[in-house]
Amino acid sequence: MIYTSQAIEKVVEYFSSLPSIGRKSAQRLTYHLLKQSPEFVEGFAVSLNELKQYVKYCSKCFNYTETDPCPICSSQKRDNTVICVVEDPNDVMALEKTNGFFGLYHVLHGVLNPLDGISYEDIKIKELIARLSGIEEIILALNPSIEGEVTSQYIAKIIKPLDIKVTKIASGVPVGSSLEFSDELTLTRALEGRVVL
Amino acid sequence: MIYTSQAIEKVVEYFSSLPSIGRKSAQRLTYHLLKQSPEFVEGFAVSLNELKQYVKYCSKCFNYTETDPCPICSSQKRDNTVICVVEDPNDVMALEKTNGFFGLYHVLHGVLNPLDGISYEDIKIKELIARLSGIEEIILALNPSIEGEVTSQYIAKIIKPLDIKVTKIASGVPVGSSLEFSDELTLTRALEGRVVL
Repeated sequence: MIYTSQAIEKVVEYFSSLPSIGRKSAQRLTYHLLKQSPEFVEGFAVSLNELKQYVKYCSKCFNYTETDPCPICSSQKRDNTVICVVEDPNDVMALEKTNGFFGLYHVLHGVLNPLDGISYEDIKIKELIARLSGIEEIILALNPSIEGEVTSQYIAKIIKPLDIKVTKIASGVPVGSSLEFSDELTLTRALEGRVVL
Repeated sequence: MIYTSQAIEKVVEYFSSLPSIGRKSAQRLTYHLLKQSPEFVEGFAVSLNELKQYVKYCSKCFNYTETDPCPICSSQKRDNTVICVVEDPNDVMALEKTNGFFGLYHVLHGVLNPLDGISYEDIKIKELIARLSGIEEIILALNPSIEGEVTSQYIAKIIKPLDIKVTKIASGVPVGSSLEFSDELTLTRALEGRVVL
């Protein structure tokens, strides 16, 4: 026998089913929890239950929220003529951290991917088109993968005829890295997207 | 605002308080859980609650267990004349995985460490001495750190006069590694512990 307790085994199973946590890490986490106070572990369990209980999609932007519409959509301080389109809710968080964007968001919850069978209807494109009235600019901020590019092109093709400005975030050499270690495609994009000084 | 939901923030806090999980990993884990079924997340929460509810120390060997004595201590198949002394419950698991030891265990829950103020009374040495009747061999399997060595010496000094064989697991070059990359102390131990072929 390896585990002397079924309860330990169950927690190890749950941890190791999470992304980037292997069996050994899962064991270490479980043994760490065993050393914590009962209040801590109970609090952790309660927080997990509340996660699924309280968190839902915002009916406008489809970001995770506890109130509907979400704090960003219902804020008076945001520019509601600009929508930034992202793939996932964590992308919203990454952009919010920049403190440089004050418009609204729209979370697609995926990108078009024919190989995985993800089509137009599986992601929130219809819902984006339904909220275009009064919008002056759509910023496409999808990940610079092939699927992300295809999805950007697809959305641009639909929205451009509606006389709304469609832009895409810049692709190029990341700040702090060096040209030497950038791949060819990134450098090509950086050249294409060069700006006049 | 970075998080649009307090519930999300709370789970991120809990995850990032665990060892080797940073803020970014905690976020990724939380967003991963949001995509799982309510049953999965609820099951995870239940397993955490059960961990602290059911798991306790075995009154003999001080390993984690749900039954007292633990399955190893109460097994008829184990050699109850040999006790292997380890630092932590995960060490028991590591040794059990070898399928090569069939005696009993004793978990000290730490090693002597004057700098951290961990003395004789803070670890389960008294409890080890209390279960020595009928024991023929004590195998010391503490981590090969300075504190582990000192603790091994300390225990050996107490137990040897009682006419019980005290052994220590071998220290040397790990299987699969090379001499070139072993440190001097490991090589010194490997030389000292050489065996006749």
